[in-house]
Amino acid sequence: MSVLGKHLLGIEGLSRADVMAVLEVARSFFEVSRRPVRKVPTLRGKGVINLFYEASTRTRTSFELAGKRLSADVVNINASTSSAKKGETLLDTCRTLEAMRPDVVVLRHPASGAPHFVAQRMACSVVNAGDGMHEHPTQALLDAFTVWQRRGTLEGLVVAICGDIAHSRVARSNALLFRLFGSEVRFAAPRTLLPEGVEALGARVFDRLEPAVEGADIVMALRIQQERLEGALIPSLREYSRTFGISPSVLARAKRDVLVMHPGPINRGVEMDPAVADGEHSVILDQVEAGVAVRMAVLYLLVGDAKPEPAP
Amino acid sequence: MSVLGKHLLGIEGLSRADVMAVLEVARSFFEVSRRPVRKVPTLRGKGVINLFYEASTRTRTSFELAGKRLSADVVNINASTSSAKKGETLLDTCRTLEAMRPDVVVLRHPASGAPHFVAQRMACSVVNAGDGMHEHPTQALLDAFTVWQRRGTLEGLVVAICGDIAHSRVARSNALLFRLFGSEVRFAAPRTLLPEGVEALGARVFDRLEPAVEGADIVMALRIQQERLEGALIPSLREYSRTFGISPSVLARAKRDVLVMHPGPINRGVEMDPAVADGEHSVILDQVEAGVAVRMAVLYLLVGDAKPEPAP
Amino acid sequence: MSVLGKHLLGIEGLSRADVMAVLEVARSFFEVSRRPVRKVPTLRGKGVINLFYEASTRTRTSFELAGKRLSADVVNINASTSSAKKGETLLDTCRTLEAMRPDVVVLRHPASGAPHFVAQRMACSVVNAGDGMHEHPTQALLDAFTVWQRRGTLEGLVVAICGDIAHSRVARSNALLFRLFGSEVRFAAPRTLLPEGVEALGARVFDRLEPAVEGADIVMALRIQQERLEGALIPSLREYSRTFGISPSVLARAKRDVLVMHPGPINRGVEMDPAVADGEHSVILDQVEAGVAVRMAVLYLLVGDAKPEPAP
Repeated sequence: MSVLGKHLLGIEGLSRADVMAVLEVARSFFEVSRRPVRKVPTLRGKGVINLFYEASTRTRTSFELAGKRLSADVVNINASTSSAKKGETLLDTCRTLEAMRPDVVVLRHPASGAPHFVAQRMACSVVNAGDGMHEHPTQALLDAFTVWQRRGTLEGLVVAICGDIAHSRVARSNALLFRLFGSEVRFAAPRTLLPEGVEALGARVFDRLEPAVEGADIVMALRIQQERLEGALIPSLREYSRTFGISPSVLARAKRDVLVMHPGPINRGVEMDPAVADGEHSVILDQVEAGVAVRMAVLYLLVGDAKPEPAP
Repeated sequence: MSVLGKHLLGIEGLSRADVMAVLEVARSFFEVSRRPVRKVPTLRGKGVINLFYEASTRTRTSFELAGKRLSADVVNINASTSSAKKGETLLDTCRTLEAMRPDVVVLRHPASGAPHFVAQRMACSVVNAGDGMHEHPTQALLDAFTVWQRRGTLEGLVVAICGDIAHSRVARSNALLFRLFGSEVRFAAPRTLLPEGVEALGARVFDRLEPAVEGADIVMALRIQQERLEGALIPSLREYSRTFGISPSVLARAKRDVLVMHPGPINRGVEMDPAVADGEHSVILDQVEAGVAVRMAVLYLLVGDAKPEPAP
Repeated sequence: MSVLGKHLLGIEGLSRADVMAVLEVARSFFEVSRRPVRKVPTLRGKGVINLFYEASTRTRTSFELAGKRLSADVVNINASTSSAKKGETLLDTCRTLEAMRPDVVVLRHPASGAPHFVAQRMACSVVNAGDGMHEHPTQALLDAFTVWQRRGTLEGLVVAICGDIAHSRVARSNALLFRLFGSEVRFAAPRTLLPEGVEALGARVFDRLEPAVEGADIVMALRIQQERLEGALIPSLREYSRTFGISPSVLARAKRDVLVMHPGPINRGVEMDPAVADGEHSVILDQVEAGVAVRMAVLYLLVGDAKPEPAP
């Protein structure tokens, strides 16, 4: 059994050692993607199914490239055009796929807890690629990898996560991860975008951006889902941008070597000024590159060992 | 030329020896999917195109995994988003693909006979992955494989196929296959869901479920397409479920070691009680697993031999 | 650096030697697709992303097969269901993909100049797979390959391109290519389908079909996009077909060994009579086969050399 156990469902439940094991393995795979021949035979003959109930080019492509660079066979299922429409339950769909003997199912689902529910009932490994407003563990791990590469540590940092905390699995997974290492996590959001009970995540909560960014090592902006929020939870995009958009002047309050992060896709000019997104502090594209390496590491740790085959 | 000839268009036209040849080859490939390294180099450098004019996650994924485990290159075309929309004829689409030199085109199409029409006009192999209300030969072969594995024979059985016979290519292909081996095939359906001339398939027809299940070795439920039938051909789903749903009490009329089958996706509580679907007699997930092995066998038998290349 | 440089954005800017280099390499790859084992290890460990903002089964499948036959890892992104919908800019999408370290992005986009815009800002290679009404260079190269195979030369020919010149990137790229070799290019279209300034492409313009076809070596019909044109730029399909459809009688005006071409998909009976599309002069399916070989050559020339890796 690997350090991760059989599944990767969330940051919750991982230890510091688990996280560091992923990052150490990711570091070696990071180099693979920069070689002229970007491929290793590690997972030859293994099968990865990307089962996505929400569209996500970025995450699906990253897992697909990770699998292929490890020589795994990768199958994509866009579940919005699949049997789900024919009334099949999630569990029946997953058990059907399991019977085809993949090694890993990578699951993106709009319902919080969906990957946990199916993982308990499946023989193959399950990776949570984002469930509802709950967790997105590989995103937090790639964010951690990016910070670790730049700062050499995940401890003692001030991490300001800014924007729609209420709907963000990215905020939740990152808060859990950075708290695990004893870093200070701050959430900055309009009160309408702060979930109840957010204190349980161990974050300091701010309803204004400026004090949250003050002295921060990391400023992470979250995506505003315009179609969902405008006129409901925020008065207008213009107003949001003025009060919670990351601008150069706000950023000046952070540490001089602050890292600017965003899980993408960016709404330029809404949650982040283009001058910040493209500026010297931005590591947004480093995050993307780290994503492939971290997902290679996760796939490898879950199924790459010469483990005995489970009885059928 | 393989035992299957150049194409697999239906069970019609196959001999017992043909069917057994597929099952024997499938038996060896079945083990491949249970190995730690689920891949053989058999079809390296061969190309398989999945051309699907109807969505089918299950069948497409099964063929895709089958191809990849044989080391073939697999290309998926979801034809509902393709040139079909631009007014291209099916034959022009197929000839265009053929000119790209695949070895096999796997075709799912809503029109009965579509694969036969194009196969006569193409140089590469064609596999029928379901055509209208006509045939779905790999489904019948995987069902036969499942029964053969459990019973050791396809002869002398009583096979009760229950539900929407009228619209079912699965019923038709299975009836042809099991009749070929001299087994007794029974169709059980409301009269509105029995096609005219069904006797030509050699099945005994019942308009009630109970007598059809009496003493059966196999009880196969068909999917009710709710959106199409309710209020038109059946009075209500509740009424259908009460009279034609496979419940534990109905199943008690079958042989003690009856096998319960379903081609999926299941409407739980409509054509089958969850206690039956998940019960000790159910081999529904075995069918799915058999599907990959049978499709590997079909692809191998059609293009895996060291046949001379046809002249261009 | 290859003869093509880093990108293939258009025929514009290529020399005769560049075109011939592609065709010579394509000739060797053409044979690969006719072998029993249709695969070479040339691009093993290289990554190709097909990023398509317009549906195109034909072009996407051709690039996908080309990449796979070269042993590259190929990832498809249907950008109409992707982050584009979430408001991400084209450049951010491309930079995100670039950060995942592919070797080539193959881009189809409805905006003229889109591939040029992103290519200037990306470290990986970009291939234009069709941009708006501007260029479709691999289509022109595969057309040239087809002609070259049949005639042994691209010089001294009379090439009649017939139909919707105004909206056609195929017409534009072919005109540039055949003019480069000193062949005579004729455009035949109703005046409503001739763009302003078309003379700049060096073509002779005709508003009737018959004189344009007179003595032609090549008759290339363009697809009429029925949904866009009828009632607007052409009076009716019937009228268009009568005056600009390629019929056997019109074709009789061309050279005796004329080649009939079409980029597909064909509207049979509109821009071309079925007797012509399927007739002895038609090389339409040869064009499709050439497409895979030409795209293999382009991918190979852009990233297949043992070039030093650019600094990250």
